[in-house]
Amino acid sequence: MNILYDARLDGELPVNDKANVLADLEGAVPGLTLLHREEDLRPFECDGLSAYRVLPMLVALPESLDQVEALLKRCRALGVPVVTRGAGTGLSGGALPLEQGVLLVMSRFNRILEVDPDARIARVQPGVRNLAISEAAAPHGLYYAPDPSSQIACSIGGNVAENAGGVHCLKYGLTVHNVMRVEVMTIEGERMTLGSEALDAPGFDLLALFTGSEGMLGVVTEITVKLLPKPETAKVLMASFDDVEKAGRAVGEIIAAGIIPGGLEMMDKLAIQAAEDFVKAGYPVEAEAILLCELDGVEADVDDDCDTVRRVLEAAGATGIQQARDEAERAKFWAGRKNAFPAVGRMSPDYYCMDGTIPRRELPRVLKGIADLSEAYGLRVANVFHAGDGNMHPLILFDANHEGELDQAEELGGKILELCVEVGGTITGEHGVGREKINQMCAQFRPDEITTFHAVKAAFDPSGLLNPGKNIPTLARCAEFGAMHVHKGQLPHPDLPRF
Amino acid sequence: MNILYDARLDGELPVNDKANVLADLEGAVPGLTLLHREEDLRPFECDGLSAYRVLPMLVALPESLDQVEALLKRCRALGVPVVTRGAGTGLSGGALPLEQGVLLVMSRFNRILEVDPDARIARVQPGVRNLAISEAAAPHGLYYAPDPSSQIACSIGGNVAENAGGVHCLKYGLTVHNVMRVEVMTIEGERMTLGSEALDAPGFDLLALFTGSEGMLGVVTEITVKLLPKPETAKVLMASFDDVEKAGRAVGEIIAAGIIPGGLEMMDKLAIQAAEDFVKAGYPVEAEAILLCELDGVEADVDDDCDTVRRVLEAAGATGIQQARDEAERAKFWAGRKNAFPAVGRMSPDYYCMDGTIPRRELPRVLKGIADLSEAYGLRVANVFHAGDGNMHPLILFDANHEGELDQAEELGGKILELCVEVGGTITGEHGVGREKINQMCAQFRPDEITTFHAVKAAFDPSGLLNPGKNIPTLARCAEFGAMHVHKGQLPHPDLPRF
Repeated sequence: MNILYDARLDGELPVNDKANVLADLEGAVPGLTLLHREEDLRPFECDGLSAYRVLPMLVALPESLDQVEALLKRCRALGVPVVTRGAGTGLSGGALPLEQGVLLVMSRFNRILEVDPDARIARVQPGVRNLAISEAAAPHGLYYAPDPSSQIACSIGGNVAENAGGVHCLKYGLTVHNVMRVEVMTIEGERMTLGSEALDAPGFDLLALFTGSEGMLGVVTEITVKLLPKPETAKVLMASFDDVEKAGRAVGEIIAAGIIPGGLEMMDKLAIQAAEDFVKAGYPVEAEAILLCELDGVEADVDDDCDTVRRVLEAAGATGIQQARDEAERAKFWAGRKNAFPAVGRMSPDYYCMDGTIPRRELPRVLKGIADLSEAYGLRVANVFHAGDGNMHPLILFDANHEGELDQAEELGGKILELCVEVGGTITGEHGVGREKINQMCAQFRPDEITTFHAVKAAFDPSGLLNPGKNIPTLARCAEFGAMHVHKGQLPHPDLPRF
Repeated sequence: MNILYDARLDGELPVNDKANVLADLEGAVPGLTLLHREEDLRPFECDGLSAYRVLPMLVALPESLDQVEALLKRCRALGVPVVTRGAGTGLSGGALPLEQGVLLVMSRFNRILEVDPDARIARVQPGVRNLAISEAAAPHGLYYAPDPSSQIACSIGGNVAENAGGVHCLKYGLTVHNVMRVEVMTIEGERMTLGSEALDAPGFDLLALFTGSEGMLGVVTEITVKLLPKPETAKVLMASFDDVEKAGRAVGEIIAAGIIPGGLEMMDKLAIQAAEDFVKAGYPVEAEAILLCELDGVEADVDDDCDTVRRVLEAAGATGIQQARDEAERAKFWAGRKNAFPAVGRMSPDYYCMDGTIPRRELPRVLKGIADLSEAYGLRVANVFHAGDGNMHPLILFDANHEGELDQAEELGGKILELCVEVGGTITGEHGVGREKINQMCAQFRPDEITTFHAVKAAFDPSGLLNPGKNIPTLARCAEFGAMHVHKGQLPHPDLPRF
C-alpha cells in the first residue's frame, strides 16, 4: 500500500501571505464575495462543535459554479487549503476553518432545481436546507426521509458530506441510502457525476465513497435525492423502566420480534428530567429510562405492530406503557426527545455531545460502562440514544469555568468511544469524525486501513489541500496516540475500566 | 488527477513462464491445490458469459486464508496477475481468466460461520451459495433478501464483487444495501475489515466502494450480511397489455401511486411465448406485454395494495388482470419469468443477454428504440425486465453458425446500452461491466471520471495485478472507441437511431 497523501495537521500547513492570496483570488475570480476582516470572519470560526474555534484566513461565498471552479483551481495553484462549509451545524468540527486556509461557504447555492413526483426524486443545490426538500415535496405527498435533529437549519450538501442520519434512519436509512446522484468538483476544478437515477451504477461506487467523506474528496455542487411517500399513519408508544439495562435489552427484543420501528429512541433518567423540566412532554420523571417507539405505515399494519411491541415491552419488564392518544400527544412525546440537547444545556453550564455506535446486543453492557466511567470522572452523563440502530449520544455535563473540567470531559468522551470500539462498535454514528475524533480513528482502524484511506484521498486530491487534518489521522498521530491495532476486547489501555 | 494505474489489456500483460510460476507457487504455498493441465483448466475457461473464453495459466483452489495470503504475496512478487472467481455464474465476464494469470477460485470457502437471529445477521465465507444463507436463516423466520436468478448456484463472494440484485431489489435493495461488513485481502496479502455491524462506519465508505468492484481492489474473504424477517404474505397480480409502451407506462404509475412492490417484472410478446411454450405458466400468449406485480408484507396491507395496483392497471389500459389464487398459481406465474432465459434459449441457437438500466419514465421510449434497432439489424429481441427499477434484460436472438451474426448481435447490444446512457440510464443494472461492457464504459463516463476510477484502483492495487482489463477501460481504449464525453441526449453517434 503506497502512501501518497501526507495528511497535514495545522502545524504543518504552509504559511500563506493573506494579503497576497486575497489579491490573487480577487483578480482570478471575478465577482466572488471574499471576507477577510476579522469581524467578518468571526461568525465562521466554528461549526456546531463550538469548543473548537479557528479564524479562517479568508471566507469565500461563491454564487456560481464557475466561481467555485475558478476558486478551487486558484487555491490549488497557490497551495492554499480549502475547507468547505454548508450550514455549519456539524457536530464534529468537520467544517472547522484553517488559519492558513480558505473557508468555502456553499450557502448561496440554495435552489431546489426540480421535484419529479413520478420518478420520486428531487434535484437540489447543496445549500438547500434538509427540511426545505420535504416542504417542496409535500404537495405531492412525498418527503425526504433522513431527518437529523438540525434539519431546520442543516444543508443537504453538509448531509452528504457527513452521511447524516436522524431519528428515522433505522427504518429509512442514512443519507447514503437516500441519495441517487451527486455532482461534485475536485480541487482541480474538474466536474464529476457520481451515481445515477438507477439503483446501481457501473464502475466503482464513488457515490457511496463520497457520501460521508467530510469534504476531503471534493465539493458537492448538486444532489439528486430519493423522495418517499408519507406513511399513512404513525403511532408512538412510550415505555418506562426502573432499570436502564432492562430498557436496553427491550430494544433488541423489539427488533428480534420482527418489527422495524420508524423510530426507536431511549433516554435515561437525567435526560428525561432535563427534557421534562424544559418542554413538559409528559415524561415519567421517576423512571430510570424510557423508550419511545414510533410505528409507521398503513393503519392495520401499525395497529398490529403496536400490539406486538406492547407485548414485548411488558415481557421486558416495562413499568408503564402509554400510547399517544392523538397527534398532539405524539408531537409532545417527540418534543421532549428532540429538545433533549438544549434541555440538558439548561442543567449545566456546558455539555459535550458524544456520538458512538454499538451492536444493539451490547447496549446493557455499554450503559453500565458509561455509568462506571461517569462515576470515575465525577462528571454527570445524560444518555440519549437512537437505540434501534445502536447509535448513542451520551451528553457529558461539565463547567468549562472549572479549571481542567473541559479536558476531563474530553478524556471521558474519548473513553466512551474507545468502549464502543471495544464491544465491536464504531466511534461515530452520524456526526462524523471531523477534527473531534481524529485520535479515536487510531483506535478504530489498523495502520493498513488508515493507509488505504490516505491512498483513496490521494486518488481524488493528490495535493491534500481539501480539508486537511480532518477525518483521517496521520500514522504519526496514531503512533503518538499509542492505541494502534485495537480490536474487540483487545484494547491495550491499562487505565480503561474492564467489563 | 494523476494516473497511477495502467490498466492492462491482455495484449499488454507480461509473459510469464508457466512452469516457473507453477514451481514457485508450489514451493511458496504449502498444500495449495494448483491445476495446470489443459484438461483440468478447461472447466474454468469462462464464467456465465460463455461467448468469451480464455484458458488460465493456472487455477488455484486454496482452503485457508493463509494459503490465499501466501498466494497473493507470491503473485505480487512475481508480477503475475490474479483473477478471483466465485461460482462462475457472472454474466459480464468479470471472472474471465487471463492466459498469463492465476485464477483464484474461492469455492472451498463454503462455511456459514454464524447466524445471529437477534442481531439479524449472518457471517459467512465467500464461497457460500446465496440461497444457502436463506436456508440457514429459515428456522429463525429470516432470509437474505437479494435473489439473483442464479441464487441456487452463485456465491455470496461473487454477489459482493458484482453488487448483485434480483427480482426483489426494488424493495429490498442490492447486495450493497444488505451487506454490513466484509473482510478483504489486498494483492499484498494485507487483511482489512470494511464496514461494521452498525449502520455507518467512520472514515470513507470503503465497504460500498468495494461492493461491485469486480475483483479489482481485493479478494473478499468473509461477509456479514443482514437478514430480514420473511414477509407474512405475498400475492401476485398478472396484467396483460395489447401494447408494450402502455405496459411501460403502467410501471411508472404503480410506483407513482405510492406502492413499492416486492417485485415488478415485465415481459414482451416474444418472451411470453417462449416462457409459455417452456413452462406452461398460464401466460396470455396473445398479449403484447405482461406485468407481474408481487406485493408482500402483512395481510391487510397487501390486500389494500392489490386493490390500488388493480385500479392503476385498469386505468393504464390493461386488457386483463389475474390475481394468483393460491401459492401454486403464484409459483407458476413466477416460474415463467424465472425460466425466461432458458425458454428463449429454446427458440434460438444462441442469445445474448443484455443488462441496462434506465429511468422508469423512459421505458416506453426505450422499448420503441429497441424495436427499431431490432428491425434495423434484422435480429429478434425478447425483452425481460426488472421493470420497477428500470433494469432491462433484452435478449438478442442469433445464430452463431451464421457468418457475422455474433458480431451483429454484439453491435446491436452495444447500441441498446448506448441508448440507455442517452436517456440518462446506465450500461449495467446488476450484471456488472466485466469484460463485456468495457467499451460502453467510455460512453458512460467522461475521461476525468475514468481517471478517478484508475486512481481509486491504484489506491488498493498499485501494481494493477488484480483482474486487469476488466471494469475500467484505459483512456486509450476509449479514444479508440471514439465515444467520449457523452451525456443525456448528446451521444455523438451518427449511426445511432434518434428518438
